[in-house]
Amino acid sequence: MSTAPDPAAPPRRRRGRRSGGEDTRAGLLEAARSEFAERGYEGATVRRIAERAGVDPAMVNHWFGTKDNLFVAAMEIEVNPATVRAEVLAGDPQDIGARVVRTFLTVWDTAGDGGAMAALLRSVTGHEFAARMLREFVTRVILRPVTERVSPDRRAERGALVASQLIGMGLMRYVVRMEPLASASRDELVATVGPTVQRYLTGNLGSTNPEV
Amino acid sequence: MSTAPDPAAPPRRRRGRRSGGEDTRAGLLEAARSEFAERGYEGATVRRIAERAGVDPAMVNHWFGTKDNLFVAAMEIEVNPATVRAEVLAGDPQDIGARVVRTFLTVWDTAGDGGAMAALLRSVTGHEFAARMLREFVTRVILRPVTERVSPDRRAERGALVASQLIGMGLMRYVVRMEPLASASRDELVATVGPTVQRYLTGNLGSTNPEV
Repeated sequence: MSTAPDPAAPPRRRRGRRSGGEDTRAGLLEAARSEFAERGYEGATVRRIAERAGVDPAMVNHWFGTKDNLFVAAMEIEVNPATVRAEVLAGDPQDIGARVVRTFLTVWDTAGDGGAMAALLRSVTGHEFAARMLREFVTRVILRPVTERVSPDRRAERGALVASQLIGMGLMRYVVRMEPLASASRDELVATVGPTVQRYLTGNLGSTNPEV
Repeated sequence: MSTAPDPAAPPRRRRGRRSGGEDTRAGLLEAARSEFAERGYEGATVRRIAERAGVDPAMVNHWFGTKDNLFVAAMEIEVNPATVRAEVLAGDPQDIGARVVRTFLTVWDTAGDGGAMAALLRSVTGHEFAARMLREFVTRVILRPVTERVSPDRRAERGALVASQLIGMGLMRYVVRMEPLASASRDELVATVGPTVQRYLTGNLGSTNPEV
């Protein structure tokens, strides 16, 4: 979705025609997009993606490591899910809201000038495929592992609330560029938005009160 | 931006060719989009929009009432800013977070099946014009009047934080359709997201703490 350089791409050794390895990698990415589109994130298999690309499944391991990483490369989301989970889950659960916000900002602040976030959101708003992929992937790979570790109850709800605040912050900071949020420091946003994420993950969500 | 029916449109009296009045209205909308694109929301004037459309400025008043309403119609945002402000500002400032969330959901829950929100976000992520318009319009017409009434300090920051949570909630509920947020009742979202908006508007925003 993004046109930014892909950090998972091997260094280019020469200009001009792609090497055979790069052809294999590009073929796998295309096959992965088709497979994920047809079967969703859960239903897609590495074996079938390799079959569609006409290569050995070991090539997926060689070029991408895991199905998660292949998905991320296919979607051109420039994050490593395992690193994100590790950073967020390390440390005191009472500070996890701050760490979630800081990690999100660190990933996206370095992902170019907002073009990557705009491309991601454009894709999500334009294609049911991308919306479904984001929903499944973010839920399974980021939100669920975190809420299973720290949230006392209502985990799916808490995860979706966290996602709503983070994606909204990203949209305002990188795409709409609403000030002073666009140029706020990470520390400022950790201070203002961190408590929101903390409450969504571990706090009192409140009960419904139709009187208000 | 949206393909949903425009509530400000006059009822169609017949099929086929548009009436002269509908031509005037359509011409004003097109002129308004050009004028807003060139000069921004603040710089655009009703007089110049009428000139561009080749009609009397009184036609703007006749068809749209105010510059705000003309802008909303040109952007195909299906809200009445004055109604939104009145609903939000009526009542106890200590419940304003709940009212903001409820009003937002009432407007968007009735704006079709999420198509309007997707169209809005697609436009915002695809066009600097739409991003700038949304930024200026939402800030001036919705956020600033509210924060000026209820927020003790850091008003621009508080307004942008509120916008970030609302737009993120809208994206998750109507476009990405992440459950259980997508099918949560308004009461549930008022209970979970209302306190976030309340804190952003009137609460303690916290100070930066680079240690976390």
